Amino acid sequence: MRAPEGFLLGGIKREGIGVGLIFSERRCAVAGTFTENTLRAAPVEHSEEVCDRGVARGVIVNSGHANAMTGEEGYQDVLRTAEAIAELMGAPEDEIVVCSTGVIGERPPVDKIVRYAREVWEDIGPTERHVREFSRAIMTTDTEEKIALYEGDGWSLLGIAKGAGMIHPNMSTMLAFLLTDVGAKPKELQMWLRDVVNDTFNMITVDGDESTNDSVVLLANGSSNLKVGSDVTITEFQRALEEVCTELAEKIVRDGEGATKLMIVCVHGASNEVEARRAARAIASSNLVKAALFGENPNWGRIGAAVGAARVDVDPDELRIAFRSSEGEIVTYEGGPVDFDEEKAKRVLSASEVEIVVDLGVGDASARAWGCDLTYEYVRINAEYRT
Amino acid sequence: MRAPEGFLLGGIKREGIGVGLIFSERRCAVAGTFTENTLRAAPVEHSEEVCDRGVARGVIVNSGHANAMTGEEGYQDVLRTAEAIAELMGAPEDEIVVCSTGVIGERPPVDKIVRYAREVWEDIGPTERHVREFSRAIMTTDTEEKIALYEGDGWSLLGIAKGAGMIHPNMSTMLAFLLTDVGAKPKELQMWLRDVVNDTFNMITVDGDESTNDSVVLLANGSSNLKVGSDVTITEFQRALEEVCTELAEKIVRDGEGATKLMIVCVHGASNEVEARRAARAIASSNLVKAALFGENPNWGRIGAAVGAARVDVDPDELRIAFRSSEGEIVTYEGGPVDFDEEKAKRVLSASEVEIVVDLGVGDASARAWGCDLTYEYVRINAEYRT
Repeated sequence: MRAPEGFLLGGIKREGIGVGLIFSERRCAVAGTFTENTLRAAPVEHSEEVCDRGVARGVIVNSGHANAMTGEEGYQDVLRTAEAIAELMGAPEDEIVVCSTGVIGERPPVDKIVRYAREVWEDIGPTERHVREFSRAIMTTDTEEKIALYEGDGWSLLGIAKGAGMIHPNMSTMLAFLLTDVGAKPKELQMWLRDVVNDTFNMITVDGDESTNDSVVLLANGSSNLKVGSDVTITEFQRALEEVCTELAEKIVRDGEGATKLMIVCVHGASNEVEARRAARAIASSNLVKAALFGENPNWGRIGAAVGAARVDVDPDELRIAFRSSEGEIVTYEGGPVDFDEEKAKRVLSASEVEIVVDLGVGDASARAWGCDLTYEYVRINAEYRT
Repeated sequence: MRAPEGFLLGGIKREGIGVGLIFSERRCAVAGTFTENTLRAAPVEHSEEVCDRGVARGVIVNSGHANAMTGEEGYQDVLRTAEAIAELMGAPEDEIVVCSTGVIGERPPVDKIVRYAREVWEDIGPTERHVREFSRAIMTTDTEEKIALYEGDGWSLLGIAKGAGMIHPNMSTMLAFLLTDVGAKPKELQMWLRDVVNDTFNMITVDGDESTNDSVVLLANGSSNLKVGSDVTITEFQRALEEVCTELAEKIVRDGEGATKLMIVCVHGASNEVEARRAARAIASSNLVKAALFGENPNWGRIGAAVGAARVDVDPDELRIAFRSSEGEIVTYEGGPVDFDEEKAKRVLSASEVEIVVDLGVGDASARAWGCDLTYEYVRINAEYRT
């Protein structure tokens, strides 16, 4: 594994404070999607402006302090950070993306962060070690690194994410950085990124728990001398984006605090895509479904109730609900309750990755959502964690 | 305690099947609000039709089988039940409200239910014993009876509810029956009921977990010979409805499965009522806030994140977040983080009833929502419970 051509990375973490840097030897086209939380953090405001202009040279991420709900002073902290990093990278400060993750309401220790950044800068590079150092520097409650790589013919797309899902947003904002050495226009990148984020990262985020800092940033520096639309087909690039983001999304959910199982909800037969997405998210975010999964309990009634509560069009006579895993498949409802083999159901649900497959029976639209089980450990972590 | 004039009640429960009856000596004006779950149960369809016509003579409730997702056969079961009870009560079947609560996907054992109903009918009455028998017959996972009484001058309003909140819908649908001996027109009753339900029962129900069977039914038989609008002021009647429904709503939340604390969320300073309600519900239904409450942890950052995720208008410079209980009050954020006394915070949060008071700082609208904490016991109950 190696960073795409022309990207250098690095990071350090010390005493709960982490600093990660991404630098591109050439100016990049940049796109981003950011949290819609109305109390979003100061760095999000700044980074969205950078993405709106479409040009970036580098990224600084600090972990430990979210810099959310910190007012005007917090925004000044972002500008000071961007200025210092811009000087380091020899670029204007409005080309520096700034991301923070950590405790809400705490201002970042800018001087210390800049000092750490200078140290990282001394040893920045493109190798696997550098990529992993960046990855580890931005982690908070994560227990595993989340890295995904797509290798094209003469180009690549590298994704690095952090976040333990929708599960603990104020310490584990979801951040994802996507680096590619193809060339592309910022407006196109933005369009492709938005589509893919809607189908991946946004399908693991539950409304009520959206963080103040969630950010996904895509940088394309063109260092491979290949362009999307001519040398690389748009279809291939979109597929690469989708693959990398799907892999990162699954890794985030799997690392959900206290989670023991990955739940993949596949909704088919919806009357339109909006309803398919709503139904899939409703199932994946239902505490009752999540607790039943933890108990390895094929409770299809709760899935039905979640679908109905999502207010989507559904034909009870055509509705189908099934569970699927490496251990096989059981159908529990098919136009009516189905007598199923309890022993087999137990086996299917005992797998560490369980698919819930629901056909609403009214149309052709489908959607997928990712979730995890609700466990004692989740309650323990979140009851004990102190702001 | 006694039923309002002209109402007779009764109930029995045997081997997991309960049957409760409400009978009015006179025909009643009736109003109802029902779940908007698109997979709502067969009895809900029937009872809504009764309420649309505005006239009812009696109610039958069966517990143990939800009769949801049971198709056309389930609907026929409702009609057979209504016919049998209508015969018993000497009324047309379209004046019989039918409510069910229990396991989704199971048809009710109609013959047994009718047999039980005949037995209840033999000993139906207006005394406290009869009211309690009805209450116990309709309970499922409830651990306590939920009864509230308003006594006016020469009239009364009795409320009886069941349900362990939004916490376990397929065994504990929320049902509430409100009986009064004043006279009123069905259309007015419907209007008043809808308003009060919006501010009470609907503020304890979280979208994603709305049951297939939730129903609130208000019966007014006029047996006191007092009319709302002339003998009893509309204001007093509305206040009585609000008091009774608030008391029942709090009792339902307090009895939430595994709950150890009642959370009352008061949102002020919202730009309009819709946003006030949305913010209050978002806080009360956030797993992170609920787990923090269980841990007696004054985690205001999570409250801020929930407010922001609810996409409501809020001024961070005017925002105020406080915790209040019988042990005092602590302000944790007031235009910025506030240094507060950790010891006092611990004391405030140790109470069994905790208010979270949030001022959004942008307007005059307010709303209240009720919730409970998220506990190990909640996970245990819902992981182990088998459909």
